Amino acid sequence: MALIVQKYGGTSVGSVERIEAVAAKVKGWRDQGHDVIVVVSAMSGETNRLVELARQIQDRPVPRELDVLLSTGEQVTIALLSMALNKLGCAARSYTGHQVHIRTDSTHNKARILDIDDKRIRHDLDQGRIVVVAGFQGMDEEGNITTLGRGGSDTSAVALAAALKADECQIYTDVDGVYTTDPRVVPEARRLERITFEEMLEMASLGSKVLQIRSVEFAGKYNVPLRVLSSFEEGEGTLITYEEEEMEEALISGIAFNRDEAKLTIVGVPDQPGVASKILSPIGKSNIEVDMIIQNVGADGTTDFTFTVHRNDYGKALAVLEQTKQELGAREVSGDNKIVKISLVGVGMRSHAGIAGTMFEALANEGINIRMISTSEIKISVVVDEKYLELGVRALHSAFGLDDKQK
Amino acid sequence: MALIVQKYGGTSVGSVERIEAVAAKVKGWRDQGHDVIVVVSAMSGETNRLVELARQIQDRPVPRELDVLLSTGEQVTIALLSMALNKLGCAARSYTGHQVHIRTDSTHNKARILDIDDKRIRHDLDQGRIVVVAGFQGMDEEGNITTLGRGGSDTSAVALAAALKADECQIYTDVDGVYTTDPRVVPEARRLERITFEEMLEMASLGSKVLQIRSVEFAGKYNVPLRVLSSFEEGEGTLITYEEEEMEEALISGIAFNRDEAKLTIVGVPDQPGVASKILSPIGKSNIEVDMIIQNVGADGTTDFTFTVHRNDYGKALAVLEQTKQELGAREVSGDNKIVKISLVGVGMRSHAGIAGTMFEALANEGINIRMISTSEIKISVVVDEKYLELGVRALHSAFGLDDKQK
Repeated sequence: MALIVQKYGGTSVGSVERIEAVAAKVKGWRDQGHDVIVVVSAMSGETNRLVELARQIQDRPVPRELDVLLSTGEQVTIALLSMALNKLGCAARSYTGHQVHIRTDSTHNKARILDIDDKRIRHDLDQGRIVVVAGFQGMDEEGNITTLGRGGSDTSAVALAAALKADECQIYTDVDGVYTTDPRVVPEARRLERITFEEMLEMASLGSKVLQIRSVEFAGKYNVPLRVLSSFEEGEGTLITYEEEEMEEALISGIAFNRDEAKLTIVGVPDQPGVASKILSPIGKSNIEVDMIIQNVGADGTTDFTFTVHRNDYGKALAVLEQTKQELGAREVSGDNKIVKISLVGVGMRSHAGIAGTMFEALANEGINIRMISTSEIKISVVVDEKYLELGVRALHSAFGLDDKQK
Repeated sequence: MALIVQKYGGTSVGSVERIEAVAAKVKGWRDQGHDVIVVVSAMSGETNRLVELARQIQDRPVPRELDVLLSTGEQVTIALLSMALNKLGCAARSYTGHQVHIRTDSTHNKARILDIDDKRIRHDLDQGRIVVVAGFQGMDEEGNITTLGRGGSDTSAVALAAALKADECQIYTDVDGVYTTDPRVVPEARRLERITFEEMLEMASLGSKVLQIRSVEFAGKYNVPLRVLSSFEEGEGTLITYEEEEMEEALISGIAFNRDEAKLTIVGVPDQPGVASKILSPIGKSNIEVDMIIQNVGADGTTDFTFTVHRNDYGKALAVLEQTKQELGAREVSGDNKIVKISLVGVGMRSHAGIAGTMFEALANEGINIRMISTSEIKISVVVDEKYLELGVRALHSAFGLDDKQK
């Protein structure tokens, strides 16, 4: 008998019928003798409906009041799911974030969980009840309602699993697990049975949207085994845990990519200490987030400095950089917003040489020109022209033996 | 400068536009220097929408979970109204029943308020904020969400006014006050400037649906001056308070009536002690509420026993009474569900003789036959045939000088 925290997202609870299907799934686990805590999101569409109501009043609704408003979405779901469970003969009780003391800081609309009081939940579990908790919400020290930001229900589930030392935190979603890459790009993409927290973080930060990054960080920090699985199909999903011996065998877990990139270069900057900061500080002050950064020193005592930003920030970043060019006496500013980033991710690459060579060779064989390279301990990223995205991902997927031979 | 509690019902907050109109109204009071606490209901239609969702799962939803569900309706309104107030430059904060500790008993779906902790609200008022509180809801001793039953927002407002010793509790609704009788029946009906709690209770219990009876009782008990006024029009409305000297002048405050009546008679019951109880106990056990009761003792040692019930319960009551007839050896059971009750209400009648005489004469002049009579200290009710309702009400309205001469 285990203690399991399950989280069902908006699509999984998008209608009364689906809520009843979730109840049946939960009952299945309960019938196997497990203690179950269920965390739910608002029914799909509900949060948008509420935001729209607020927008009719204020373009930027008062954050405190927006939280009071939005938190009703999950509250509706917990009540309906508890009714559905009771209908199936499962004693169940619903709780708002407030009621089970999910204490957060006071940053309305994107609060962080500080602490959870598990007393009430433990009591209900001891009485044999299923506990249904509203995701995405908490309360601050003064008792104000807070929300964790979109997707925060994943974080709620992991935080509850950590606080109650659950055996597993299961995130039910509309995909049946984490894949070696996006199956829409590579039909041979394979579901991974296991992946490490670090790999998952890299995959998530690279645009693989299965899980919220914060929830993975949280799960890693508190060592909560996370499992991603489908609300609509049977299956084992993908387990996200710490690295284990047997996992060493896999060199590469997956190939992530990100279409939302743009790169900017400032050429011929006099190479002096503090140049990087002089270039990037104005960018940061304009609230533009920088991703990859590369600096080459040329023979003539000047340096070229290249970085990537989100494609939406491209125009703004160009304007800032033109200003910087004047100030630093640089030669030229150039940019390209038709680029993408492709990354190999795998803890296995730590102890294996030659991964980068294989990667570059596979891309060269397809005539794909690499525009930037950046590496970390468990990831190699390249920037290539947008038009090569699919070709590049498929070539790498095949070169590293990730294709599902059964398809 | 006064402390005012205002309550706006579902129709008054039925759309974003109406919520913004309420905000403007509230700001008007604030600008006059008053401290304002606003209690709101769910947007009209919202509670029904939520009940419908629940009904799709369970015919009789688990009461605890129904409260979790329904309480979201008011929570949406408090957030939107606070946003609208902030938009107008009025600092405002919204609170659920939970957050301001509106403590109730644990009778889910129709809980009773036990206590309110005014600390948080006082603090906000001291800071110059308008406080917006969700009506209709509270929490029990264990922190479970409770609701007060439909119309409970009036009770919330009065309870808050009592707890904070407010100078006035204003109930905004879709009528502009309490009338001498229903203006749809008597076009000359006049808005009352004042009425006593007792009179209001009689009017309300007789089908005049302006206020919830519980909220009037509550206001009377804690001596909270209540004012009924319109959300949509300007005006002073009607003030409901304790009797004052000047009020003695009005003999009759209003004429109430109730179309939902049916009467039943059991004839020729052996007149023994305990007969009334033997007749009424089975009725009560069938969950039928009895209104007027009359018993006449005949010359032959038997008695006739007549009472009225809600028209919907007529068939059920007849069946119960047939059974009782057998048991008591009574002669006959008869009934009539085409009757109505008309009542004169007024504290003034206490000290004036001849009111009943004037009443019966006015009805006789119109050829209206009185079928039953029942009196209390501030009320005289008669039962007449349904077809005489309008004629009777108009005759009495005119006979007691209630007509608005300006119309």
